[in-house]
Parts: sequence; C-alpha cells; structure tokens
Amino acid sequence: MKLCRYGPRGAEKPGILDQQGRIRDLSGTIDDLTPATVTPQQLDRLRAIDVEGLPVVEGQPRHGVPVAGIGKFIAIGLNYADHAREAGLEPPPEPIFFTKAISCLSGPNDPVMIPRGSEKTDWEVELGVVIGRTCRYVEQASALSHVAGYVLANDLSERAFQKELGSQWDKGKGCDTFGPVGPWLVTPDEIGDPQALDMFLDVNGRRMQTGNTATMIFPVAECIAYVSRFITLHPGDLLITGTPPGVGEGQKPDKIFLRPGDTMHLGIAGLGEQRQEVVAFDLDRLNDGARA
Amino acid sequence: MKLCRYGPRGAEKPGILDQQGRIRDLSGTIDDLTPATVTPQQLDRLRAIDVEGLPVVEGQPRHGVPVAGIGKFIAIGLNYADHAREAGLEPPPEPIFFTKAISCLSGPNDPVMIPRGSEKTDWEVELGVVIGRTCRYVEQASALSHVAGYVLANDLSERAFQKELGSQWDKGKGCDTFGPVGPWLVTPDEIGDPQALDMFLDVNGRRMQTGNTATMIFPVAECIAYVSRFITLHPGDLLITGTPPGVGEGQKPDKIFLRPGDTMHLGIAGLGEQRQEVVAFDLDRLNDGARA
Repeated sequence: MKLCRYGPRGAEKPGILDQQGRIRDLSGTIDDLTPATVTPQQLDRLRAIDVEGLPVVEGQPRHGVPVAGIGKFIAIGLNYADHAREAGLEPPPEPIFFTKAISCLSGPNDPVMIPRGSEKTDWEVELGVVIGRTCRYVEQASALSHVAGYVLANDLSERAFQKELGSQWDKGKGCDTFGPVGPWLVTPDEIGDPQALDMFLDVNGRRMQTGNTATMIFPVAECIAYVSRFITLHPGDLLITGTPPGVGEGQKPDKIFLRPGDTMHLGIAGLGEQRQEVVAFDLDRLNDGARA
Repeated sequence: MKLCRYGPRGAEKPGILDQQGRIRDLSGTIDDLTPATVTPQQLDRLRAIDVEGLPVVEGQPRHGVPVAGIGKFIAIGLNYADHAREAGLEPPPEPIFFTKAISCLSGPNDPVMIPRGSEKTDWEVELGVVIGRTCRYVEQASALSHVAGYVLANDLSERAFQKELGSQWDKGKGCDTFGPVGPWLVTPDEIGDPQALDMFLDVNGRRMQTGNTATMIFPVAECIAYVSRFITLHPGDLLITGTPPGVGEGQKPDKIFLRPGDTMHLGIAGLGEQRQEVVAFDLDRLNDGARA
C-alpha cells in the first residue's frame, strides 16, 4: 500500500494510491493516518479495503506528511560508507543518532525556508522508517517486523548552527521546514529489501547526491535495534537513516549551500519524489495551527 | 494556580489545588491538561473557576506528568555557574541544548528504571518551563510572557551512554523513565521571579544537590529566546534549564551512580517535590498504552 495525506496544511485527509497511481479518498474509512492507524492490525484493516471502490481525488492536491502526530523524529548520522570516505571521516564504530524537532516536519513539496541568519543550509536525501509496533531492546533479526512503512525524507541541516555553536547538533537540524517527509508511506511488502534502493537529489537541476541504501554502514534493521537499546520507539515514531555522498558541505572545490530561489528535487526508488522551492524566512508561510 | 494530573498511568484526570493544598477534580471543566489547554486564554478560563466548588479528590492518588501530550522536550546543558566551576569547565559562550525523547516522560514519583547495561545512571534536579504561546525568534524581554507555567523535573542521565558512545548526548538522556516531571504545573503569577528559586536533591537521604536558579548562566528568558532562534516552541513544549552542582559524576573522591534500591528526593521552592525509587529494568512496570 501507498498511503498519503493530502490537502491544505492542517486540514489533510487520508488517502491511498490505486493501481493507476491516483489518490483515493480514505476519509470514509479512517479519520486520519496517525500513530494509532499505522499498527499492524490497522494496516491489515486498510489492506482489506476495496480501493477501486473509493472516491478518486481529482486534481493535484498538496501532499502533507503521510502520518500525522509523529511523536519522535530521530536521525542516524554518517551512515553511508561512501559518504564517510568522501568526507574523509572514519566510519563510526556504532550508530550516531540525534533528534530533529517535530516542529520541523513539513509536506514533501512545501517550500523550505532559510532560517534568519543562516548561511549554510544544506540538503540530505534519506530513507525514513515509520514505526508500527513498539520497539524496546528489539533484536536486529526481528527489527523490520516493527516497521509500518518507509518514507522519503530530506534532512535539511544548517551546518553553522549544527557544528559551530557547540557540540550538540540540534540547533542545525530542527528549524521550521527542515523535515520534508513523503509523499507516501509505503508498506514494507511493496519495498522488499530496504538495502537495495537507489536515491538521488538534484539542486537546480544538477545531480548532487547519488546513492543506494546498499552502502549503509548500519542497515535499517540494525539502526532500529540499536536505537531501541536506549530509546523506546513507539508507533508513529520516525527514524531517518543517513545520507549518501553529495551534500553541499562536501562539494569541491567549494562548498555549496542553499539560497532563496534554489529548487531541490529528490527521490528514492519506490518511495516517490519531492520538489522544494527554497525561500527566505517568511512568517506568513508558516501556519502554527498545524504542525505537519 | 497549581494544576496537576492524577490517577493511574494512562488514565490521569486533570486537577487543581485548592487553598488547603487538596486536589480538586477539574474533569468536569476540561477533559485533560494538554497543549491546547495551557494557552493564555484557556488558563484564564481555569482562573475564573470557583475552585472551592469542585469535588475534592480523596486519598493520595498517583501524580502523572502535569501536561499530557508534550510535543518537544528540550534541555539546556551546563547552565549553572557553580556547577561549571565544580566540573572544572568553562561556562559555555552561548546555551547548549539537546533533546530528551518524549517517551522518557514519567510521573514525578514513578520508579526510575536503570536501563539494561547501565553502570552510570545519574540525577539532575532542574527547573522546567512549559510553553503556553508559540515562540519563534522571541526577544528575551518578552520571552517569559510565553510561559504557561513552571514544573519540577529530574533530568536522569546515563553518563556512559551520553558521553562514551559518540558525540551526541541523546543516547543517555531519553531512556524510559528518565524524565520525571511534576507534581504540578505552577502558573507564573505564583512563582514571581524564576531566578530566585531554591532547589535540592537527596539520594538515600543524603543531600547531593543544593542550588538556586540565581546562579544560572543563561536565565530562563534567555534560554527560551535562544532556543526560539533555531527551533519554534509550541504550546505544550517543555524546556528544562540545567542543573546546579552535585550530580553523581561530580562527586569526590569517587563518582556515585544510582543502583536499584536507591531513593531520590528532590524539590524546587514553590514547585513541589518528587520521590523516586530506583529499580532494575522491568518491562512489566512500563505500560505502553500510556506515554506519561
């Protein structure tokens, strides 16, 4: 299944893609896609629906974050061997993780805002995992059975805020609009092996990141198992799993950072694509009534 | 006002303290204390209630986290001048902050669990602030007008997980039960100056931490303003503001860490007290149906 939330920010409805890739309205079946509706039982209930009998959603609605009410947004750092080599860094001996503020969550094609005072806003295409069953001290061998689905994410990062203002990365990871997620939540049966997915990110039409989840240092299952030794993951939590080579701060001879007017286009095989316009900070574009 | 949530984990009801310090049942007025009910308008509505006319809650119910559905749990690090001196560290030039996983939130007197494999679980009494109005690029001068109320918190920390497994502190800060908060949410009118509050923490009856919020390097208003330059704070977000001297890893000649059977007793003037029993990890004590 490919599930989504579509419509204006703060008023999204749940949807499901049909065989032709059209959105069908799920709002007659569930109120919304939430932590409570991405459990195995609830997903099985959705699987039993006759999708072709649901109303087709006409037009090209905005996509929201495909799950509302994400509780935790945890990110694995430096998890691609080729990215580590590019950066001249040793692969970490065990996963690094940090937190992105949930208030940075944003629709997959919503504009990305440069925070006030930012000179070093950067991109990172990443495979995301939405948890469907509580994970606490789970074994790697069973970790993937706790996944509700996969998502495409862009882990926007302000490198000066992240690295030049102290040791903790939170300052550069959780700015408003720094977490575009979606368009779809894709259930594991449609993805197969999560360690064989091609991914890319273009800026202004130029290919910047090219990668495949095969080069992850710690595969998805290990990331889930590892985090669950420290922090319990609950249904609706989102874990993003690191980025392949080609971020802006890794460009040679000069680093490249985002400026208003730039556009990003990114995708992961089977998970859809995102297109974001980069804009200056603009309070009017943010709607505080909605978090996603 | 002193507001609270009382009752079994996952089934808490809202309450308010009367003049005699008894809990009165607020559930006839609001369903729960949530981000939506700690806004200035909603708190004004509660202020207008005739508290003495509400039902008295009999007995000694358990206290839960005084606000349900906390969205973000952000913590300021190394924010007391006397603690920095004790640790032999330079005061940071600007605030350090990091994230505690919301799944670590715990009632103020609920047992604290030593995570599996932990040897270095430590305590930190802290002043917490619950946000009542959205904060984004707020000025220090107006920051306190965004505070719904103050809370007592214990920022439990596993020092090996925090500092010996990579650069980011999240691994040692967000373990289950590592965030006891409460018993009360105390509105600012009852607290007055948040920079003049005595605080203490005892372990097994021995005074370990003694402090006053007067020695904060960055006062509460500056912490709120600073964080809001990077991360937008929303109603129901919780910010804890650092700990005074006397944590376990600062003990001389030998560091002291928590063991099953230990007890903690902590308090801040005007915000009440907490008492926690330290126990070994025990899955049966956790109730995944409830997050706080």
